[in-house]
Amino acid sequence: MAGNYLGEVFRVTTFGESHGIGIGAVIDGCPAGLELSVEKIQKDLDRRRPGQSHITSQRKESDTVQILSGVFNNRTLGTPIALFITNEDQRSKDYDHIEDAFRPSHADYTYQAKYGFRDHRGGGRSSARATAALVAAGAIAKQLISEFSLLVGAFVTQVGNLRVNKLHHESESDFLELISVVESNIVRCPDQPLAEQMIELIEQVRKEGDTVGGIITCVVKNCPVGLGEPLFSKLQSDLAKAMFSINAVHGFEYGSGFDGSSKRGSENNDVFYAKGDKILTRTNYSGGIQGGISNGMDIYFRVAFKPVATIVKAQESVNEKGESVEVKGRGRHDPCVLPRAVPIVEAAAAIVLADHLLRNRSSKL
Amino acid sequence: MAGNYLGEVFRVTTFGESHGIGIGAVIDGCPAGLELSVEKIQKDLDRRRPGQSHITSQRKESDTVQILSGVFNNRTLGTPIALFITNEDQRSKDYDHIEDAFRPSHADYTYQAKYGFRDHRGGGRSSARATAALVAAGAIAKQLISEFSLLVGAFVTQVGNLRVNKLHHESESDFLELISVVESNIVRCPDQPLAEQMIELIEQVRKEGDTVGGIITCVVKNCPVGLGEPLFSKLQSDLAKAMFSINAVHGFEYGSGFDGSSKRGSENNDVFYAKGDKILTRTNYSGGIQGGISNGMDIYFRVAFKPVATIVKAQESVNEKGESVEVKGRGRHDPCVLPRAVPIVEAAAAIVLADHLLRNRSSKL
Amino acid sequence: MAGNYLGEVFRVTTFGESHGIGIGAVIDGCPAGLELSVEKIQKDLDRRRPGQSHITSQRKESDTVQILSGVFNNRTLGTPIALFITNEDQRSKDYDHIEDAFRPSHADYTYQAKYGFRDHRGGGRSSARATAALVAAGAIAKQLISEFSLLVGAFVTQVGNLRVNKLHHESESDFLELISVVESNIVRCPDQPLAEQMIELIEQVRKEGDTVGGIITCVVKNCPVGLGEPLFSKLQSDLAKAMFSINAVHGFEYGSGFDGSSKRGSENNDVFYAKGDKILTRTNYSGGIQGGISNGMDIYFRVAFKPVATIVKAQESVNEKGESVEVKGRGRHDPCVLPRAVPIVEAAAAIVLADHLLRNRSSKL
Amino acid sequence: MAGNYLGEVFRVTTFGESHGIGIGAVIDGCPAGLELSVEKIQKDLDRRRPGQSHITSQRKESDTVQILSGVFNNRTLGTPIALFITNEDQRSKDYDHIEDAFRPSHADYTYQAKYGFRDHRGGGRSSARATAALVAAGAIAKQLISEFSLLVGAFVTQVGNLRVNKLHHESESDFLELISVVESNIVRCPDQPLAEQMIELIEQVRKEGDTVGGIITCVVKNCPVGLGEPLFSKLQSDLAKAMFSINAVHGFEYGSGFDGSSKRGSENNDVFYAKGDKILTRTNYSGGIQGGISNGMDIYFRVAFKPVATIVKAQESVNEKGESVEVKGRGRHDPCVLPRAVPIVEAAAAIVLADHLLRNRSSKL
Repeated sequence: MAGNYLGEVFRVTTFGESHGIGIGAVIDGCPAGLELSVEKIQKDLDRRRPGQSHITSQRKESDTVQILSGVFNNRTLGTPIALFITNEDQRSKDYDHIEDAFRPSHADYTYQAKYGFRDHRGGGRSSARATAALVAAGAIAKQLISEFSLLVGAFVTQVGNLRVNKLHHESESDFLELISVVESNIVRCPDQPLAEQMIELIEQVRKEGDTVGGIITCVVKNCPVGLGEPLFSKLQSDLAKAMFSINAVHGFEYGSGFDGSSKRGSENNDVFYAKGDKILTRTNYSGGIQGGISNGMDIYFRVAFKPVATIVKAQESVNEKGESVEVKGRGRHDPCVLPRAVPIVEAAAAIVLADHLLRNRSSKL
Repeated sequence: MAGNYLGEVFRVTTFGESHGIGIGAVIDGCPAGLELSVEKIQKDLDRRRPGQSHITSQRKESDTVQILSGVFNNRTLGTPIALFITNEDQRSKDYDHIEDAFRPSHADYTYQAKYGFRDHRGGGRSSARATAALVAAGAIAKQLISEFSLLVGAFVTQVGNLRVNKLHHESESDFLELISVVESNIVRCPDQPLAEQMIELIEQVRKEGDTVGGIITCVVKNCPVGLGEPLFSKLQSDLAKAMFSINAVHGFEYGSGFDGSSKRGSENNDVFYAKGDKILTRTNYSGGIQGGISNGMDIYFRVAFKPVATIVKAQESVNEKGESVEVKGRGRHDPCVLPRAVPIVEAAAAIVLADHLLRNRSSKL
Repeated sequence: MAGNYLGEVFRVTTFGESHGIGIGAVIDGCPAGLELSVEKIQKDLDRRRPGQSHITSQRKESDTVQILSGVFNNRTLGTPIALFITNEDQRSKDYDHIEDAFRPSHADYTYQAKYGFRDHRGGGRSSARATAALVAAGAIAKQLISEFSLLVGAFVTQVGNLRVNKLHHESESDFLELISVVESNIVRCPDQPLAEQMIELIEQVRKEGDTVGGIITCVVKNCPVGLGEPLFSKLQSDLAKAMFSINAVHGFEYGSGFDGSSKRGSENNDVFYAKGDKILTRTNYSGGIQGGISNGMDIYFRVAFKPVATIVKAQESVNEKGESVEVKGRGRHDPCVLPRAVPIVEAAAAIVLADHLLRNRSSKL
Repeated sequence: MAGNYLGEVFRVTTFGESHGIGIGAVIDGCPAGLELSVEKIQKDLDRRRPGQSHITSQRKESDTVQILSGVFNNRTLGTPIALFITNEDQRSKDYDHIEDAFRPSHADYTYQAKYGFRDHRGGGRSSARATAALVAAGAIAKQLISEFSLLVGAFVTQVGNLRVNKLHHESESDFLELISVVESNIVRCPDQPLAEQMIELIEQVRKEGDTVGGIITCVVKNCPVGLGEPLFSKLQSDLAKAMFSINAVHGFEYGSGFDGSSKRGSENNDVFYAKGDKILTRTNYSGGIQGGISNGMDIYFRVAFKPVATIVKAQESVNEKGESVEVKGRGRHDPCVLPRAVPIVEAAAAIVLADHLLRNRSSKL
């Protein structure tokens, strides 16, 4: 059983290779009656688009989304919503020199072994280009969950060794202000002075023909209590699954995360208190999820990205026959994928939340 | 849509509350013809069982597994395998004092809110007791994947601030030796001197009425190339999802993980080389997975556990009416869940691998 | 991917072989807060039980159901509900003489070929005994849908060439009266004089060591408008799928069914009219379903059962080696499965309806 | 959970409304390495296309399929195959007069009620136009299963009261000859003289502004033993489910079907015999399936279609407000859907068989 779908009730199936005709997604299970703004979809695609700033890949894709079905008079019909994005700037020739070579830390070798056959041009299906379809579908998920007041925002909190310290996003206005800072700089970091250092670092890394990794933090505000389906579709389980589907992701933690491992229960527990008719916790080491179910506090998690595998430096490798070859990235690649990954993380999170909002409709009689 | 199943082709559905009649699992999709050893299932249950040493909970459960179906003359029939474990030592009264109180960082509040109704005794479905069913099913998955030479081994690499440094498990014999050390001490740590410090720490924490978290590392050896189903059932996606279903898990990373975020591509890439007719990588920062598909190298990942939420110290909280109450753990709880979580991590990993072994049978014509 | 589950959101997974320890089911996705009557479950099991009258198999099974999980203080918890029924009167020796023979029109040969290995005792998993688990789960589905006023009733409308003609069940009281006639005779036929002829026919067939087929009609009353998920989980699609999972079923039709094939559109169309704020149709050739979605009229369908394959007459066959053998039913078998199949058809229908009631909760914003 | 997909391992998701931009399908799970002929896909689309003869609708659609992804150098990549067909001859105005009216025996009312909103133009998603996407996907399934020698052929065996009697298709050459007769006449009937009568009947019915129903028989040859997943994805269960997804289908039977209901076991049983190393049955009342699993004999089944609901005669109805209105078909409709439904039945069958061929790969160790 193949795995090109995400979500059960709000189900997104994506398709497309980086150097084929185009890429797309079909959403089955979006409720009828949702007013859809194509502009909002396009806006998220533009946030992911290559060529958006001097610190990203210069591949030129307009990434214009076309809605093929499921929408009538700007409202969802309850039928499958098909989305399509044409591939424009393909330069397949950039990949001819590596037709039978396996690029280090890429998926060339594993795709060849698994399927016995692959599209070598630009990684084919394993290319990060496929995330554009996820972003488009996620932008619809965002519009669905915003009908229920949920907000999702992601931002870069680490590039290389440059790290953001504490963040304030308790109130909705704090959060919106934080997001506006994030979108005001090209690296999408909520700390403006640090953003400048990050940009400098990325530029330097690019000059060296190298790449650098980092961390994205994502916050979900106004999540109702009750989302998550124990025992195996806990909210954190599905969020983690979705995040690890994103290219280059090697780590996920929520709430106190890895740091919590060295703590005592008495330090790490979140005690409850009542405020009006709401039940809240004084701290939020649980990251808004307890027993796999959202508790109404902010959900937050961190996603670790390794450095992009394509570097301009020469590297040893082998080809399909097992012979030694040297490979060296040409093409137009990102020195740091983090700025463009922000809307991808948001999209994956929004799809999981949309799915769980609908799944939760069957929890009670 | 509820979520009490794990896996698609090798599908495990679990059931049962901690203080009901018992707990169990149904495996649908285990291929016919597998010779099953009940002893091996029982052995893993014994490794998870409370009361196995002085650093675990003293709840007394024999956790004897009964196979209700799917096996005839010790071989699997290809029909569903139902497993059942009776609850024995229930002491439901330990929970009467918290019938309507929400224990901090437990699932009491979220279950109440989601379902409108809950079994308050010992956490009900949210109790870690449910993992016994997972361990039983996982022990069958282990027997299935061992037919294809795969080995899964987990071990405690951190308790509080005590951390294991480097591990050697390149060769199969190194790995088996490491595992034998792990099983020789009650904390299941591969570093014997550190194991003793960990035991001491856990004892001290218990005396304080407190609890402590830690990290488990898991290694999969002899995994064939090709397991994993991009884009959304990548091998790491499904491993992460499975691990986050385990109580108290707050973080997951594989390969270079969070550390990789601060690295350069030139440092973090794994270059390929050929050895005989095998294609290997000189380093393994990819953790045995590239593009979501196993590459034949060791798979390894780390799972972060927060400290157990039940502490003997008094904590403030609220009850169902939102009134302030004080709660204090009675019952018989683990000061540190890590030693007993080792077979749980292995079980979850084995189920994912069994599922992907079968799923991969459809990748080629 | 194996197929021992029915339903997506209300999902029933069954397990068990006819001559193993027992059989059972796990329901994942039953909403929390449903008051469950074990008596109602038992009552349906008693309607399916062998030995209930002189025209059924005399195998003695009390078929007492045990609820292993998911229910607390007689209410569903929202967690998986596991049901178990012990096998009691097994007489496995009745099957020793056919250990390696393939009984005509049974599943012996196909199970052997598919799985390479089988439990030859009484058909193992392919035995109609497995339907007891379906009936138990269906009895819970019935209780769920009755919360929304749905009623499901099935009855025998044909045995051999004896056929019931027209039925009246337009009003709820007509329907309840019809059901009470059905349950007053052992063949479960709504036409009392015909019931007596049917009983006579079945007795005669039994004396001849033979078996006879028939047809069950099922009616669903008070189904709300909107159930069914086009294009591939149309309500009739899922009803058909469920019915064909029942042993011996070879045909399914709803509404005008096969007869409609020889009609004109002008004869077969159901015209709409309004009655108060309800929209109804003057005729109901659509069988209560249009475009795969319930339209609020009575749903009705007919299920064709072939005669039971086990006959006492000697029949030629082959064994596993392909050698000619003679087989002859011993054991204790039904001359006509129809009377006992009535609650099975109802159970399968109720599970499909329960599933679609929940699935429909996501159709609108 | 919506239902726009068919199949589990070979999974087809379709999308599109009749008067939107176009319709299409995504196949997730087609194994890599299959040589794909676009001509064969187009040929089946042409067999389904309106306007192909004077007894079908005269709507003009070239129904040219475009493969958007999943194929490289004419071979499948193992990645999702997206197919797209543009809607060309839309004449949405034909539907303006019924914008808020519910056409009798159509899905207008149920879609409006379920989704609260619908695309009234030509039935939108409920239009038979959506079956073009199924045919395209089915043509790929056919190519997959033909790699394993399976052949699927359907034909019209009844229109109104005109019925084909006995058919011979025991040998492969008999079958191929029968299929060649079928494709030589525009009604797709294997009996040439009867075909002419059927054509005459359809023409007459059309003149009357009416429509007529009928029956399609489908045969699967060379099916290996072992396909089908008991208990709930039996081969007949999934075939039935797929057939009932086709517009206008109201009945399905396989093997002895409804006729078997009036038979005795001694008449209806298929006795086994050996021929070389093959095990065969002397008769085939089982329709090639026993216990839900194919037994290697021909699979055959019959699908009953009601007459098309759109007639040119005036009919009473109501509109969205519940007011009485008169509706009368304009547009360009089929007087009898059977000839064009032949490739649809084949496509649905081929998808089910492809899915089960792959599912069966996990039945044994």
